[in-house]
Amino acid sequence: MLIIGIAGGTGSGKTTVVNQITDELSTLDVGVISQDSYYNDLSHLNMEERRKVNFDHPSSIDFKLLEEHLNMLKEGKSIEQPHYSFVEHNRTGAYTKIVPTKVLIVEGILIMTDPKLRSLYDIKIFVHADSDERLIRRLKRDTRERGRDAEEVLSWYQKNLKPMHDEFIEPTKEFVDIIIPNNRYNTVAIDIVKTIINNKLLNV
Amino acid sequence: MLIIGIAGGTGSGKTTVVNQITDELSTLDVGVISQDSYYNDLSHLNMEERRKVNFDHPSSIDFKLLEEHLNMLKEGKSIEQPHYSFVEHNRTGAYTKIVPTKVLIVEGILIMTDPKLRSLYDIKIFVHADSDERLIRRLKRDTRERGRDAEEVLSWYQKNLKPMHDEFIEPTKEFVDIIIPNNRYNTVAIDIVKTIINNKLLNV
Repeated sequence: MLIIGIAGGTGSGKTTVVNQITDELSTLDVGVISQDSYYNDLSHLNMEERRKVNFDHPSSIDFKLLEEHLNMLKEGKSIEQPHYSFVEHNRTGAYTKIVPTKVLIVEGILIMTDPKLRSLYDIKIFVHADSDERLIRRLKRDTRERGRDAEEVLSWYQKNLKPMHDEFIEPTKEFVDIIIPNNRYNTVAIDIVKTIINNKLLNV
Repeated sequence: MLIIGIAGGTGSGKTTVVNQITDELSTLDVGVISQDSYYNDLSHLNMEERRKVNFDHPSSIDFKLLEEHLNMLKEGKSIEQPHYSFVEHNRTGAYTKIVPTKVLIVEGILIMTDPKLRSLYDIKIFVHADSDERLIRRLKRDTRERGRDAEEVLSWYQKNLKPMHDEFIEPTKEFVDIIIPNNRYNTVAIDIVKTIINNKLLNV
């Protein structure tokens, strides 16, 4: 099994990169695991307490479970991936069964922060976009698609997203094997990753 | 023909990356063209005038000839690459005949600064190392291997190398397809580039 970790800040275009890479590939061959499914179980907190949690901090992610799942998939075992509700800020109790694939992409803004997890990735990729470019994309997404107020988005970005990015996400560039510059749509880099995956699929 | 451009500042480990990539490949299949062979012909200047030339500035490179040569190789024609003497600061008048290969690597600190040249590369790579790391490597090389005085190397770095790097080299990161972080020896990135090259060799 080839495990590719893909990290990058909010608005870096990480999700688009993952979608372009997996575009023409069968889900039987290539699986995608998102950090978003691995927020901590917060059943022990009431709603008010959950709202105070900093979900942009690495401690909000259940890296232990994610690590366990990657190791199981590597061993050829299926996993039960928890469903997470961003409304309830908690796991729903439902699961999705994920079966092992020849290639597995693990994606998320914080997936390079944990040393044990990093050691499980065969290829570590960081998708880079300039901070102003990332802010523009985030602002557009939150106002257009999520109907949020621009002022609110900006102050959330300044108070939470930027400090967490600078402290935890940006420094993980140091650990990766390749950085994909993504200020503009980067077809060459996507083709390179596709070639590596197709090689793996042909040779296994 | 697949043309791969590899840039990166002084001390970035660019040359080592190129050597590792071409290591097990036949020179009949993969050629390497270095920017160092394309310093301007300075026959019209006397020695004193040549010594005043800023050889770290893009204007010191004969990009027109390099572009012409790449186009000729792409068309399947051989080229006559000029020999350059770093003692005379001029071409020697001798040539090396270079024949077309399936894959061609073009390497040099300034090879991403020229837009026409950039458009000739199928894959554009920037080898990154932190500025302090690059300084350490340059300092070691110039004192150990070239017997230079450490103080002189540092002041040369500050007065010439750093400003030229910041003005002309670092900004070309914006144009590349992948960045290879090279503070530590990066085997995964080298394997990725090797895979791309081997794929090209098998498919042509």
